[in-house]
Amino acid sequence: MAVVVMKFGGTSVANVDRIKNVARHVKREFAAGNKVAVVLSAMAGTTNQLVEWVREISPLYDAREYDAVVASGEQVTAGLLAIALQAEGIPARSWQGWQIPIETDAAHGAARIAEIDGSHLRERIDTGEVAVVTGFQGIEPETGRIATLGRGGSDTSAAAVAVAIKADVCDIYTDVDGVYTTDPRIVPLARRIPKISYEEMLEMASLGSKVLQTRSVELAMVYGLRLRVLSSFAEPDSLPPVEIGNLENIGTTVCSEDEIVETQVVSGIAYAKDEAKVTILKLEDKPGVAARIFGPLSKAAINVDMIVQNVTPDGAHTDMTFTVQAAELPRALEVIDKVKQDLGNFEVKSSDDVVKISIIGIGMRSHAGVAAKMFQTLSDKGINILAISTSEIKVSVLINADYAELAVRALHEVYGLDAK
Amino acid sequence: MAVVVMKFGGTSVANVDRIKNVARHVKREFAAGNKVAVVLSAMAGTTNQLVEWVREISPLYDAREYDAVVASGEQVTAGLLAIALQAEGIPARSWQGWQIPIETDAAHGAARIAEIDGSHLRERIDTGEVAVVTGFQGIEPETGRIATLGRGGSDTSAAAVAVAIKADVCDIYTDVDGVYTTDPRIVPLARRIPKISYEEMLEMASLGSKVLQTRSVELAMVYGLRLRVLSSFAEPDSLPPVEIGNLENIGTTVCSEDEIVETQVVSGIAYAKDEAKVTILKLEDKPGVAARIFGPLSKAAINVDMIVQNVTPDGAHTDMTFTVQAAELPRALEVIDKVKQDLGNFEVKSSDDVVKISIIGIGMRSHAGVAAKMFQTLSDKGINILAISTSEIKVSVLINADYAELAVRALHEVYGLDAK
Repeated sequence: MAVVVMKFGGTSVANVDRIKNVARHVKREFAAGNKVAVVLSAMAGTTNQLVEWVREISPLYDAREYDAVVASGEQVTAGLLAIALQAEGIPARSWQGWQIPIETDAAHGAARIAEIDGSHLRERIDTGEVAVVTGFQGIEPETGRIATLGRGGSDTSAAAVAVAIKADVCDIYTDVDGVYTTDPRIVPLARRIPKISYEEMLEMASLGSKVLQTRSVELAMVYGLRLRVLSSFAEPDSLPPVEIGNLENIGTTVCSEDEIVETQVVSGIAYAKDEAKVTILKLEDKPGVAARIFGPLSKAAINVDMIVQNVTPDGAHTDMTFTVQAAELPRALEVIDKVKQDLGNFEVKSSDDVVKISIIGIGMRSHAGVAAKMFQTLSDKGINILAISTSEIKVSVLINADYAELAVRALHEVYGLDAK
Repeated sequence: MAVVVMKFGGTSVANVDRIKNVARHVKREFAAGNKVAVVLSAMAGTTNQLVEWVREISPLYDAREYDAVVASGEQVTAGLLAIALQAEGIPARSWQGWQIPIETDAAHGAARIAEIDGSHLRERIDTGEVAVVTGFQGIEPETGRIATLGRGGSDTSAAAVAVAIKADVCDIYTDVDGVYTTDPRIVPLARRIPKISYEEMLEMASLGSKVLQTRSVELAMVYGLRLRVLSSFAEPDSLPPVEIGNLENIGTTVCSEDEIVETQVVSGIAYAKDEAKVTILKLEDKPGVAARIFGPLSKAAINVDMIVQNVTPDGAHTDMTFTVQAAELPRALEVIDKVKQDLGNFEVKSSDDVVKISIIGIGMRSHAGVAAKMFQTLSDKGINILAISTSEIKVSVLINADYAELAVRALHEVYGLDAK
């Protein structure tokens, strides 16, 4: 017997038939004697429609009212699934954020979960009732207002509920059957990764593999919660029910590094297309110049990712390249234009025709030459590197978008990730 | 300065433009210094869609989960209107049933409001903030579950909120500009009634004039709350803001009889098309036979309206005619079929090709011959009366549906209701 949280996203509950399909997934666990809480997103498209209405009425909307509106989609799917489960003979009850409660901070529209008292929910689950919980939403206890976690927040809700009810595993059902060594649409030989560490998954998640929301992985890491990525499109009866000690037979298990016996030097290759590059040329090279560029960007809440700086041959000037989210490029250029008035003449070039490719693996910590192999491989293919950034377990390079597929395929092969 | 509750139904908030139009109605009151609470329905069509999903998943749905699902529509419109008001520069906040709270009994799907503590809402309104309240829903305090009031329940929510915050008037905005002496589509000379008593309105409401929900009028009557019926399709700036002592210049005010100086003998003519007639022929005439027919119908929660009984010329048998809601006719016939096994052979005939026409007026109490005039008028037109029922302030007749328009027109003229 295991305590299981099952999370289903918008495409998995997109209509009545899909909701009935989710009920069959839950039935499989229930029939095996597992105790189940389900966390749901809104029907695919619903949240977009609600957001559109809010924006049509007022682009400068009040975030608390925005939250009251957009949180309604999860209320619908949670109630419908509870009914679908009851129709299958399974006792079930829906729970909205405020009913549990899932307490959040006051950052409406992008709130963080502050606390969940899971004791009542756990009691109900222990009686054999399935709890169907609305993802994406909670309540801000000071004002009693509904707060939402931001797009993709249901993964985080699922992880937080799993921690709160002391679940053995949190299964995230998606439209893929696990985390792959890279995007199988680009590399047909990509393999499903049976086990991946929290750290690697965090890098994968934040670098463009949109399988799991970053915050849900962070939460799982902090509390030592096992996450799994499974496919909701699999025939419900084709999957084995959760059995502790035998989780890796399907999907991808995200867990502590200690639980992974056979570590890879490189576990996966991620790419992020929504990057834009800004290059500042002929900037006067004097102390504090970087701060005077990046300070205002930070104040404008623009996230700068990779930064490369070179001194020009004359020694008096410096060239600087950095990347931002493509969507934030226009705002970034506006900020820099203002800085120009302070810092004197420099040239600015920008392009969103770039892609960030990353190799990720906890094995890097103990292996030398991993980055060098990457650079050599790209060089062999004639691919120019525009910027580099590294962390303990990843190396990222910025390259021209035209070479994205070529780079990913070459790296996937050279690090031995291709399926045999 | 007045404290005003404004209620808008589904067609008045059917899309973003209509919601902005509602905001302008509210702005008119706000600008005049009135304190405002708004009560809203869901967008037209939304609740039907939600109900359809519930039924598709399971015809035997759990009423508590049904309520969780269908209550979401009002949450959306309330949030959107709050944003629309803020965009007009008016401080506003949305309130769901559980946030106020609006406490109900446990009859999910058709709950009754048990209590509203309006003190916090009133405090907020007194600060100049407009409260936007979700109609149709509340919370059952024992279980903490959302409960809905049944279709059309937003009128009742509005009246109950008005009582709770001690409002001076509750304005119900609809697609008509008031209550008419009869349906203007049938009688072009029908007139708007500036003032009508609660008792008359109750008869009008329950007899087929679907302008106001019955329960909202009952509530208003018990608490002496003034209700008005106004048009939400009127240009917002064309209506005068609420001014106590000068309410009857527009719409229809529903108020206590004492406030009506000039009472009519007959105030209005109502008709109800959704009636069905059941006739039982050659029933053995013995004591208790009526109870053995109507007892089982009552147990099956089938509401019987008009009842007529005759003894046949041989004195041994009796014929009985009664009416039920047309939608309940099949179930009623089933019940009677079972009774037949007990009561022996009788003949059953039924028809839903009938209509109930009623004349309504508090003046009837002190005037004789009102009913006689009705019967004579119908007789003059060659219309056969199938059944009659009366109360202190109304007379209803059942006639063949073919004569409905003819009857309404003739009665409207004979009681002096035609516009000059």
